[in-house]
Formats: sequence, C-alpha cells, structure tokens
Amino acid sequence: MRAQRIRAGFVQTHPHFGQVSSNLERVERLVDAAPPFDLLVLPELFSTGYLFRDREEVASLAEPDDGPTVQSLLRLARERQALVVGGWPERAGDRVFNSAVLAAPDGSIRTYRKIHLFDREMELFDAGDRPFATWDVETAAGTLRIGVMICFDWVFPESARCLAVDGAELIAHPSNLVLAHCQDAMKTRCLENGVFAVTANRIADDDRGDLRLSFTGRSQIVDPRGTVLVRASDDREEIEVEEIDLEFARDKKITGRNDLLRDRRPARYPNLG
Amino acid sequence: MRAQRIRAGFVQTHPHFGQVSSNLERVERLVDAAPPFDLLVLPELFSTGYLFRDREEVASLAEPDDGPTVQSLLRLARERQALVVGGWPERAGDRVFNSAVLAAPDGSIRTYRKIHLFDREMELFDAGDRPFATWDVETAAGTLRIGVMICFDWVFPESARCLAVDGAELIAHPSNLVLAHCQDAMKTRCLENGVFAVTANRIADDDRGDLRLSFTGRSQIVDPRGTVLVRASDDREEIEVEEIDLEFARDKKITGRNDLLRDRRPARYPNLG
Repeated sequence: MRAQRIRAGFVQTHPHFGQVSSNLERVERLVDAAPPFDLLVLPELFSTGYLFRDREEVASLAEPDDGPTVQSLLRLARERQALVVGGWPERAGDRVFNSAVLAAPDGSIRTYRKIHLFDREMELFDAGDRPFATWDVETAAGTLRIGVMICFDWVFPESARCLAVDGAELIAHPSNLVLAHCQDAMKTRCLENGVFAVTANRIADDDRGDLRLSFTGRSQIVDPRGTVLVRASDDREEIEVEEIDLEFARDKKITGRNDLLRDRRPARYPNLG
Repeated sequence: MRAQRIRAGFVQTHPHFGQVSSNLERVERLVDAAPPFDLLVLPELFSTGYLFRDREEVASLAEPDDGPTVQSLLRLARERQALVVGGWPERAGDRVFNSAVLAAPDGSIRTYRKIHLFDREMELFDAGDRPFATWDVETAAGTLRIGVMICFDWVFPESARCLAVDGAELIAHPSNLVLAHCQDAMKTRCLENGVFAVTANRIADDDRGDLRLSFTGRSQIVDPRGTVLVRASDDREEIEVEEIDLEFARDKKITGRNDLLRDRRPARYPNLG
C-alpha cells in the first residue's frame, strides 16, 4: 500500500569538528525529544563536521557502513520505528565517499554517494560511483518512494530530475550549505518535479584556524508547488516535523492538460545525455 | 570578436486580441521611444493576442515567416541596428507553431518553435519539431550566443539546460505568463546555468467571453547569479534596457574548483535522455 500522509522532519544541528561521539549523543538527545515522525533527515557529515584539512584527516574519521554513525542512525530508526537519513564520510576499501545513509527500522540501510562534489571536497572525497536512484521504503503509513541527494547536488537540475523521473515522491537532502542560493532554488526543484524536499542543514562555523566556513541553517520542508511549509532559523539547533500528503507528489498535473514529467520531450534535448 | 557589454531589454505589452495591425503599430511606437539597445525581446504571440478559440482561429491569424509580424520586427531591427525577438503563430504548410523569431539588422531571421506547449495550446498548435539550439548573432558590440525558449518552457529544466550546454550566454524568453511561479523560478534557471535571461511578458486579460486569462506582467532581466536586474510592473506597458556584461555568462565557475557545466556527470544521470 502506498503511504498517503506521513510525518516528515529535519534535525538542524551544530556539529563540533571531529567529536563524533558527542555529536552522535547530542543528536540522539535531540531526536529523543522530537514529536512522532515517519522520516527524519539529518545534515551532511553531521557526526564528524565538515572542514577536513586533507584526505588523510578524512580517512581518519571515515567509517564503514556499519560504523558508529550508521549504527546510531539504525538505533534511532528502530527506537522510533521510522526512517532516518543522515550524512557521513563512508570508507569503502581505499575510497572515501561523502555519503548519506537511509536507516530503516528493520535494520536495513540504503546508501547514496554524493555525485557532485563541492569545492575542496574534490580533493577530499571520491565522487559518487553510482547513478541517481530512488528506493521504495516502508513507513508505518505505507510505502514511500524516496530519493536522496546531498547539499551541492541541488545546483545541478539533473540531480532532482533523475530522482523524480525515477519516481521519487520526496527528496531527502542532507546538507552543509554555505552559499546563499539553495533554499530558494529548492522551491524551483520541488515545483519543476512535483516532489517534496526535506533539506536538513547545519548551523555555525567550522573554524580550523586557517580554514573556516559558515553554514547557513534555514533547513526547510518544501511541497510540490514550491511552497515552504517550514523553515528553521539560521543559528539554532532545531527539529521540525510536518505532516505531508504524498498524493500531492504523485499527481504531476500542473494544468488540466500538462504533466510535469510526461510532457518532457527528450527527443528535443540534444545534449543532456 | 565576442561581444562583452551589450544593452539588452524587453518590451512589456498589452496586445488586443486579433488586432494585428494596431498591435504592431503600438509596439513600433513603443520601440521608437526606447533608449538604444542591442537586443530587445517582445512577448509571446504579441501581435495576435493569446486566447484563440480553436485551431481554425489560430489558422486564420497565423502568418508565414515573411508575414506582417516578422516584417515588422525586421524593420525595427534594421532601423535600430539591433536584434529583436518576438513571438507569433507561425504557419508552415499545414502546421502552425507557437514560434519566436529572432530578427537581425541584416534582414536574416532565426526561428524557435515552442517545444513544451501549455494547456490548451496542445490543441491549438503543433509542438516544436526541432531540438533546442543556440545561435551566434552579431551585435554592434560583437558576437552574442543566444538561445530562445518560450513561456512554459521555463518549467522544464531541460529547456534552459540544453541552451546553456549549447553555449547560450543569454536566453531570450518571450512569454504570456499566467502562473505565479515563473519569475522567481527564472532566477534558478539563470543561476544553475550561469546565463542571463530576458523574460518579456504581457499584461492584462484576454477576455473572449467564455474564455478568459489574466497575464502577470513582471517582465524581467536576470543575471547569471540569479539576481533580478530589473523587473517591470504587473499592469503597465513598459520598456526596460540594461547594460549587461556577457563575460559574467562565460565564466561558469561557481567556486574556485566548480564549473556549472563541466561538473555535470551525465554517466550518473540514467534516465534523462
């Protein structure tokens, strides 16, 4: 049975660089205090922080997909009987990906490896080696078809488009945003694809002396018409949960005759493949 | 020589349905009063109005590409020694396209036939039969690479993307907008592709008794970072001309390491072709 109404939310956090255990503990306390949810999205690299000095430092904090970060998310998923998505540096043999895991209450995981790396990430991580794809996942309300993209993937319209064409009803979007544009551009992403998006961003600075970045907060949930249902502050840890109606994301009609996906004309797109 | 700074503008008009001669005359008067420009964009179907009753009525007002509308635009192009873009119902044998012409001062034209038809247009027009493509065109300031899309093409990210991948520095966007979302979504289109866009919209209602539509005005010029350089009112005929620096649209860097087009990863886009 397809899910209709689900409760989807985000956790906006302030990771402290390299302090994995305490970052995980704080997220667990935040989530313990959250209202009921079927899906919760955490930021990109929420357990480690973002501003790695070099590839060696990434390697020292990277974890396999049964490491502490994924285990923590699986524990939350089981305790809350809900889906939990969050980002971590994934060690896979010699490679390290900027990944996000979707942890399910049955103990299963699905992993997305960031395809479009941002700035210094190009030197720190391997680029995602798998195409964009969506997953059918079970919630207490029924089946949800979900896609995951990470942070800077937003600027490439192909990211959300691939997920929508593959059937995504909701895009989980763990982020560590520093540019000003994403939150508003995500309204376009939702509108053009007729999908919900949950962007979970972090706040505050990673200040490593000579390296420093400020993150913009303003995590949000956007509906398939581009309406922002809820948007967080730019400077506080927050959890928000909204009940959303997935039927809204299954009906791709934008006029009586126009369908956002069926009206695509690939034969007229000469150079996108 | 590539153009650097050019003067680009729009004419926001109020067409009166079916009154082609007087609509063309009013546009010519408006343009006569315009400040100097290298490129001027007029709305979709600016000479006929929009709200055709049926295919027969479209046929009765359709013109070949040497008809009064195109001739009027060529005359303006020659007089002002500038490029002029505007929309008209194009008769081509048995078919009628919702087209836009780019008229050049040397008397040449280039034509775009709308690919994504909006709502009742699906019954009134034939869908564009050629892929998205851009053109190198001469201005007094040098060569400009321009792409054209029409109105509802905006909602499909593939439209602007195809033009940008084909090298567009500026997208001319003749429109008859009725939905609320386009003007803000065009900021995303410009940002994700690093291009300028000139959206020329119309104002007022087409009121044909049982058929009626209200058009939203708010014609605009947007730069490659998604900044609205100028936006018109929602209820007045207006001409605006802005000097823009095309170098801004040739530099696709969004960070020191990221390029909006080169960082596309087509091998990870499984379903867009």
